[in-house]
Amino acid sequence: MTSEREIGVTELALRDAHQSLMATRMAMEDMVDACEDIDKAGFWSVECWGGATFDACIRFLNEDPWERLRTFRKLMPNSRLQMLLRGQNLLGYRHYGDDVVDRFCEKAAENGMDVFRVFDALNDPRNLERAMAAVKKTGKHAQGTVCYTTSPLHTVDGYVELAKQLRDMGADSIALKDMAALLKPQPAYDIVKAIKSEMPDMQVNVHCHATTGVTLVSLMKAIEGGADVVDTAISSMSLGPGHNPTESLQEMLEGTGYVADLDKELLRSIKRHFAEVRPRYSKFMSSFNVETDIFDSQIPGGMISNMESQLTQQGAGDKLQEVLEEVPRVRKDAGYPPLVTPSSQIVGTQAVFNVMMGRYKVLTAEFADLMLGYYGATLGEFNPEVVEQAKAQTGKEPITDRPANHIPDEWDELRKEAEGIEGFNGSDEDVLTYSMFPKVAPGFFKTRPEGPKNVGQDPAEIEAEKAAKAGDTGTGPVRTPITYNVTVNGRSHSVAVKPA
Amino acid sequence: MTSEREIGVTELALRDAHQSLMATRMAMEDMVDACEDIDKAGFWSVECWGGATFDACIRFLNEDPWERLRTFRKLMPNSRLQMLLRGQNLLGYRHYGDDVVDRFCEKAAENGMDVFRVFDALNDPRNLERAMAAVKKTGKHAQGTVCYTTSPLHTVDGYVELAKQLRDMGADSIALKDMAALLKPQPAYDIVKAIKSEMPDMQVNVHCHATTGVTLVSLMKAIEGGADVVDTAISSMSLGPGHNPTESLQEMLEGTGYVADLDKELLRSIKRHFAEVRPRYSKFMSSFNVETDIFDSQIPGGMISNMESQLTQQGAGDKLQEVLEEVPRVRKDAGYPPLVTPSSQIVGTQAVFNVMMGRYKVLTAEFADLMLGYYGATLGEFNPEVVEQAKAQTGKEPITDRPANHIPDEWDELRKEAEGIEGFNGSDEDVLTYSMFPKVAPGFFKTRPEGPKNVGQDPAEIEAEKAAKAGDTGTGPVRTPITYNVTVNGRSHSVAVKPA
Repeated sequence: MTSEREIGVTELALRDAHQSLMATRMAMEDMVDACEDIDKAGFWSVECWGGATFDACIRFLNEDPWERLRTFRKLMPNSRLQMLLRGQNLLGYRHYGDDVVDRFCEKAAENGMDVFRVFDALNDPRNLERAMAAVKKTGKHAQGTVCYTTSPLHTVDGYVELAKQLRDMGADSIALKDMAALLKPQPAYDIVKAIKSEMPDMQVNVHCHATTGVTLVSLMKAIEGGADVVDTAISSMSLGPGHNPTESLQEMLEGTGYVADLDKELLRSIKRHFAEVRPRYSKFMSSFNVETDIFDSQIPGGMISNMESQLTQQGAGDKLQEVLEEVPRVRKDAGYPPLVTPSSQIVGTQAVFNVMMGRYKVLTAEFADLMLGYYGATLGEFNPEVVEQAKAQTGKEPITDRPANHIPDEWDELRKEAEGIEGFNGSDEDVLTYSMFPKVAPGFFKTRPEGPKNVGQDPAEIEAEKAAKAGDTGTGPVRTPITYNVTVNGRSHSVAVKPA
Repeated sequence: MTSEREIGVTELALRDAHQSLMATRMAMEDMVDACEDIDKAGFWSVECWGGATFDACIRFLNEDPWERLRTFRKLMPNSRLQMLLRGQNLLGYRHYGDDVVDRFCEKAAENGMDVFRVFDALNDPRNLERAMAAVKKTGKHAQGTVCYTTSPLHTVDGYVELAKQLRDMGADSIALKDMAALLKPQPAYDIVKAIKSEMPDMQVNVHCHATTGVTLVSLMKAIEGGADVVDTAISSMSLGPGHNPTESLQEMLEGTGYVADLDKELLRSIKRHFAEVRPRYSKFMSSFNVETDIFDSQIPGGMISNMESQLTQQGAGDKLQEVLEEVPRVRKDAGYPPLVTPSSQIVGTQAVFNVMMGRYKVLTAEFADLMLGYYGATLGEFNPEVVEQAKAQTGKEPITDRPANHIPDEWDELRKEAEGIEGFNGSDEDVLTYSMFPKVAPGFFKTRPEGPKNVGQDPAEIEAEKAAKAGDTGTGPVRTPITYNVTVNGRSHSVAVKPA
């Protein structure tokens, strides 16, 4: 065996781990005490912002997300701070004008962000290109992302092609992102190996969830295939719908010729910290353990339970099986998008509509937009009949160019709107907060002076509450009901849907 | 890639999974409905008996373990039923006379057992040889076991040497047993590869717990090294202190050149069955997730919490760190035994005694016996000074030959004793039950006519109970206090210890 190859690790405890395990509810005050140890433990980067954390901060925690970022910056001076950015969506739920994308990246960098992992749910590179350029302009690390999914059209070559496009955008590294834990060991090896053969000097990061139980093996194989950095979460914040344990990754490598050079004593201390904190959030946690059904159904567990509740609310709980069988058809008609937020909600809700009202008798506004190209391109073709239906129903024309081409610059307008809101502090950061969450931001600006609210609870208190009331308590930022406007033959229907 | 190599799977749900996850409490009636599916799913074998199941049946469930075996036999006519047998200990907690060992294997085979996994906690082949011969005599499958541990003395060559000794006893297969989840991927590969190079035709089975989070990777590597059969548990009965999920193992192999040919629909049905049953036993379950400390400390989590409670009871909770540091010394003095039941209790309790009373000032009777060779030989040398101490304290002489050589035949005597017990049914099976659990069997014989008792509970009931009383409720068959008799300078002390 030659000398060991060092594998970098991105620690997820401060962002994706609590987003996945406890509906993004962890308060900053429950994280600060771990930061010094995290900063010194030897991670390649520390993911701590983006995804749903921004939303949860202002919606549930009365915490300024920009202040959170600045605090992390202060507490972890030696670490690369990393964020997840949904391309042209930023951290919101629609595409933004290019000037807003530019401003966001500039401000995030200014407040301390180092590594921007930029992705698009449809893997449409045109939805990444502006954000990648904006990050490059700040001089920070632009990580281009390949979202992993499976379909008859998805191939190793296709993923390599996308990686090449990201490289051409100036990507400093490529992330292979497996948000649904679908990445099995062999494809993990094949894809990473193929990317590294094509671009030997490109850093490859691999992000896997643990949901299906196989992905620590996938990380091993990805490393054998040439991966440079892998994502894990400290063990007390790992597994289930979360990620593989950091300590297990490190131990796994012993003797293999690869090494993750992390300080074990500090890992232990970080583990203990979160082991103490975690029970405080147990009312936001599911008892979910491991689930492999998604390999066959392509339907994430959260999506199933959501469709189930939609159906039950409409007195059609017995239709679940039909809906589950409809989902792959709808996905195919939409050109096989990966099923993740927001495509999972869009496809899932359309499948429910198809079963309840007849196939494509009614399209949700979002599904119509998807079929008309307003979310971007998918790998496959849109079913032309359904595209016709979408045109007829909405009166909109399909587009084939970059969706954001159709969005004029909007920064000045957004600033003007923000200035009219009580509690707005005048900063660009506040304009961005408002831009991404125009319904939630006003309430937050108003209550911000009251300071952060910790929604964690003493475990005994949680037990008592549970005993007192029956019924489901788990909600999350993306579980807030969303109202879909459905227009049929000129009549508009408002349909409230609780997404997965 | 050439044609795929088929990997056999041993399903653990009916034995080790519920032993590890819910203190062996699952009632037969909660298993019967899954048996038909398990029988047809395509497993190489179905582990369903042995370990602590026998003990738990008569101690907690008022269930005749022999009847349980016969029921499994009836419900799974197409499957190899597998059991775990502690060599000369059988399923009890002491060594038995050879005639009892013979009778046990004969009766187990007669009642339906097919595969006997025979092991010894110290890896002393002399403790296996009679049981192996007895199994061979029945014509059933004798699986010789190598228990995996790590120490300065344990090497790949040493494990291969032991495997060769097992082959020479007539082993039909070799199991590599990793009861503490210490087996990392590289040693898994190295050991299996080395065994297969030495004996290419020998079937190699690999058993790993999931505790440390790395062992699905170890199973992958073991398969790459040539393993033929691996042990897993259906996903709804997996992970934590249990095992890797069966479905994940199957999915993991896709495209690798290996295949586990199990029926996915049946796996799904088995999963659903146990997903429904599992919450009924939640009061016996720990919230334990994953723990890698054992790699460094060599001390299983259960053993730590046990020592902690021993110390706290004696008002010495602050001595835990000292005890944790003492354990490796005691283990070294005892020649590096693997730390599993009963060696973990014996070593752990001696470490507590050393810290509380001075190093080796007082030996427990069990530790003295260990040092005098009465449990068999360990890989290292016994520390001669401590051996002297053990001689002085107990007045016993050390032995170096097979421990069971010192145990005369005892079947007739045991039968005579059993015959005097109320409720004894006259069968050899009852004699064996009495022989292995002389203190528990009489109570069981008496209450047996009342029929099995299901200790599972409606989850709501459990919540209510939890709310009503604080404090720890988790107990298990091996967690019942054991009384150690400690003789110091001729004075006998009785010390009650709650083992890990």
